[in-house]
Amino acid sequence: MTTAEARLDNHPYGALERRWHRMSALSDAAGVLGWDMSTVMPTGGAEARTEQLAALDVICHQQINDPALADLLDAAEAEAATLDPWQTANLREMRREWRRETALQADLVEALSRACKRCEMAWREARPAADFAGILTPFENLLALVRESAEALGNALGLDPYDALLDGFAPGTTAVQIDNVFQPLAAFLPDFIEQVLARQAAAPQAIPLEGPFPVDRQEALSRSLMGVLGFDFAHGRLDVSAHPFTGGVPDDVRITTRYDEADFMSAMMATLHETGHALYERGLPANWRLQPVGESGGMALHESQSLIVEMQACRSAAFVGFVAPLLREAFGADGPAWQADNLLRLVTKVERGFIRVDADEVTYPAHIILRSHLERAMIAGDLAPADLPGAWNDGLEGLLGIRPENDRLGCLQDIHWYDGAFGYFPTYTLGAMIAAQLFAAAREAHPEIPEAIGRGDFAPLLTWLGDKIHGQGSLQEPDALLIRATGKPLDPAIFQAHLKRRYLD
Amino acid sequence: MTTAEARLDNHPYGALERRWHRMSALSDAAGVLGWDMSTVMPTGGAEARTEQLAALDVICHQQINDPALADLLDAAEAEAATLDPWQTANLREMRREWRRETALQADLVEALSRACKRCEMAWREARPAADFAGILTPFENLLALVRESAEALGNALGLDPYDALLDGFAPGTTAVQIDNVFQPLAAFLPDFIEQVLARQAAAPQAIPLEGPFPVDRQEALSRSLMGVLGFDFAHGRLDVSAHPFTGGVPDDVRITTRYDEADFMSAMMATLHETGHALYERGLPANWRLQPVGESGGMALHESQSLIVEMQACRSAAFVGFVAPLLREAFGADGPAWQADNLLRLVTKVERGFIRVDADEVTYPAHIILRSHLERAMIAGDLAPADLPGAWNDGLEGLLGIRPENDRLGCLQDIHWYDGAFGYFPTYTLGAMIAAQLFAAAREAHPEIPEAIGRGDFAPLLTWLGDKIHGQGSLQEPDALLIRATGKPLDPAIFQAHLKRRYLD
Repeated sequence: MTTAEARLDNHPYGALERRWHRMSALSDAAGVLGWDMSTVMPTGGAEARTEQLAALDVICHQQINDPALADLLDAAEAEAATLDPWQTANLREMRREWRRETALQADLVEALSRACKRCEMAWREARPAADFAGILTPFENLLALVRESAEALGNALGLDPYDALLDGFAPGTTAVQIDNVFQPLAAFLPDFIEQVLARQAAAPQAIPLEGPFPVDRQEALSRSLMGVLGFDFAHGRLDVSAHPFTGGVPDDVRITTRYDEADFMSAMMATLHETGHALYERGLPANWRLQPVGESGGMALHESQSLIVEMQACRSAAFVGFVAPLLREAFGADGPAWQADNLLRLVTKVERGFIRVDADEVTYPAHIILRSHLERAMIAGDLAPADLPGAWNDGLEGLLGIRPENDRLGCLQDIHWYDGAFGYFPTYTLGAMIAAQLFAAAREAHPEIPEAIGRGDFAPLLTWLGDKIHGQGSLQEPDALLIRATGKPLDPAIFQAHLKRRYLD
Repeated sequence: MTTAEARLDNHPYGALERRWHRMSALSDAAGVLGWDMSTVMPTGGAEARTEQLAALDVICHQQINDPALADLLDAAEAEAATLDPWQTANLREMRREWRRETALQADLVEALSRACKRCEMAWREARPAADFAGILTPFENLLALVRESAEALGNALGLDPYDALLDGFAPGTTAVQIDNVFQPLAAFLPDFIEQVLARQAAAPQAIPLEGPFPVDRQEALSRSLMGVLGFDFAHGRLDVSAHPFTGGVPDDVRITTRYDEADFMSAMMATLHETGHALYERGLPANWRLQPVGESGGMALHESQSLIVEMQACRSAAFVGFVAPLLREAFGADGPAWQADNLLRLVTKVERGFIRVDADEVTYPAHIILRSHLERAMIAGDLAPADLPGAWNDGLEGLLGIRPENDRLGCLQDIHWYDGAFGYFPTYTLGAMIAAQLFAAAREAHPEIPEAIGRGDFAPLLTWLGDKIHGQGSLQEPDALLIRATGKPLDPAIFQAHLKRRYLD
């Protein structure tokens, strides 16, 4: 459509909705192809799939960079008074997306994409070999381009560079806000971890569960628990992938897990976690499919929905009491290890460890605070890649009192930075804090929630979440949504109170 | 790209290759999404998928309708003398595709795509319920749009509407050519079927195989036979769908089958059939991926590759001798029913039946002649959808002497029309005839082929096919390719000779 044609359109807002409908459908198509690549695609299909996804990328980039689209946004904003609140929010989100997507020159986008691919490939070899030197050069190149992009994004959005990156994952979040909630937590954690470890050492020790646990029974258990949570298999799937994730689209939401015959808890908790993500996607406002206002409020809020299910609901005494007989039946097991009290000890066991993805609820924030600190320093230019391993090891020792003996257990463990994702890590712990705050508010509004969960009835919790979060899409910005749901902005004391109650009471 | 920019491009042919690379990658993306829809997609995902496919359709339509592309085609044709034979053929196929794709307005393309998906989803419910009334409205809507498209296509190509549809599946084929090869067959078949039935009635009766045949063993058998045929699971998959098909892309080619616990032969033969399609896709010239000349020569030639495997090779005495011990092992069975002579009687048993996909090689052409006749009448406007069930039942009675008692056994049995595919059915019997002609030529060139098949060695046949057909892509048009491979144009006498030799000798 040319600029002249755009001017001929009498309803610029309507034209924008039609354009976004198409762009979102194309990006959903890419999402389904991404799911396929991680679950069912044979290895030999990788090259063809890369071409398919690259073609879709180019098309989406062309569509949002169409000059006629910019004209339509201006024209729609000029007559914003005629729009209802959902339309107004939709237009706000369109502008937000447009600002981010048009901030970077095409050659920078391409250079960044190439640098990501190179660095990620190098990381895949460097991690098992604990060979940080092997990725130093591609990582330096990548970081230089990420910093350049952050600068350009920041200029376009009127934000500091790191805030511009944060905003891409958790809209509106700034480094200052993160300091406000992470600093009290960093002060609280070291003593608290000591107390929890001392208490758990003095209490009866958790008896490990003896496997093997056949994969087919684990899968049946996963499906049955998804059913308990209200997952609708007419609108979604459960599959297997190397790393659990939630993909697909709201009306066809596809979660994955991975099975270990020696440890069914890992797959079960991953399934519950991803089901939390899935219920959020599925509950997004059906009237606003394929529009920005119909999308989730970003990764921090998304993580809050997985963690409210996994951490707040399913690692509680109430849920463990409900699930214990199901587990005994699923694996034909019995005895003291399979009683609710021991199972609860297992799912709330705290340990200092090196690996973030294996960390428990209590030590996890330390891993995130470390990464948050280091990535800000890297984006600011205060920490050179060559100094990352030392800074990582010092930082972990300061926070958790342990020091990795190699970089496989240290700064090479996560893919994020080596794939260009800076500003993502904080959303994990923001999500944990939001989950605690939402769960507390839900329980206050519906005191029967824990007892219902103890019967396997998630309806009271999920109805409340559907009303306060899922069905709201992006009508409000995430901060405003949290205030609307809980009466106040993010309050780090609530997460700490949750930890104290669960681990010290 | 504007027309001015196109003129600035010094190498119009190269620019065309780049554009087609992107368009083909987008259409491959749609292909993978189509596979997903027929195999793993939950029913509730249909609406979202329809939007994704419609958006991709529109984008592909926009890309090929770009006025700059027409200029590039003209410019490239003006300097065609500089191109090598593959490039020349590629340009010819680009022009062919462009003519077809620019014949339809964007709104018609989009409406057709939506109508197809809706009618197909309705058919998935209507078929098991034998509920033709349940799809009448979506089917009427779809047929009206198909007829409108055929008219527009015919105008653009200088063809009758039905020929324009045929040309989309079997390039260059016309209704007159089909009459030329189908009419002798229609004249030959009734007496021939009588003779075969009389002969089989007088011979020892085939002993039925006693099931049940567990699905997991059937699947293992399918995978093992795919391996015998050289299917590479690093570049493909086997899955289940309502109607077996071959999807995906040449480097990730995905076939499907369907299992019946009472009858393993059906799934096994479907797997062999689809493997024939898959080997063609996989063997297409690797240097010409994502270019028109790298694609197959249309559906008649494609069907010849599935039928040369299923009918010519795998229903032969040689193959049955090879597979008999594998079948006994797969199902832990033995006895007279499982000996090669009885198995051969089973896989060459001729019966008048209602279901095309279950039909034997001898009666199958009657099913196709019926459909060919009915779809020509529907496109011409001489047969209304509401009258289809009656016309179907009358037609089948006339051709085979049997009348279906409901539409599940009649006009609802196949997906094709309900997915908008008119002009496709004739390619099945054209394919059978081409397969007979190719197999005869291969055997003449390599007389050891039957004996090799008897050892499970398909290399002599597949090497010949790879050279003569698979690796040729669309370098020649299908008619020319057949002449190059066999020395003559399609000759209906060769197929009849094959039938006589197998069923009356």
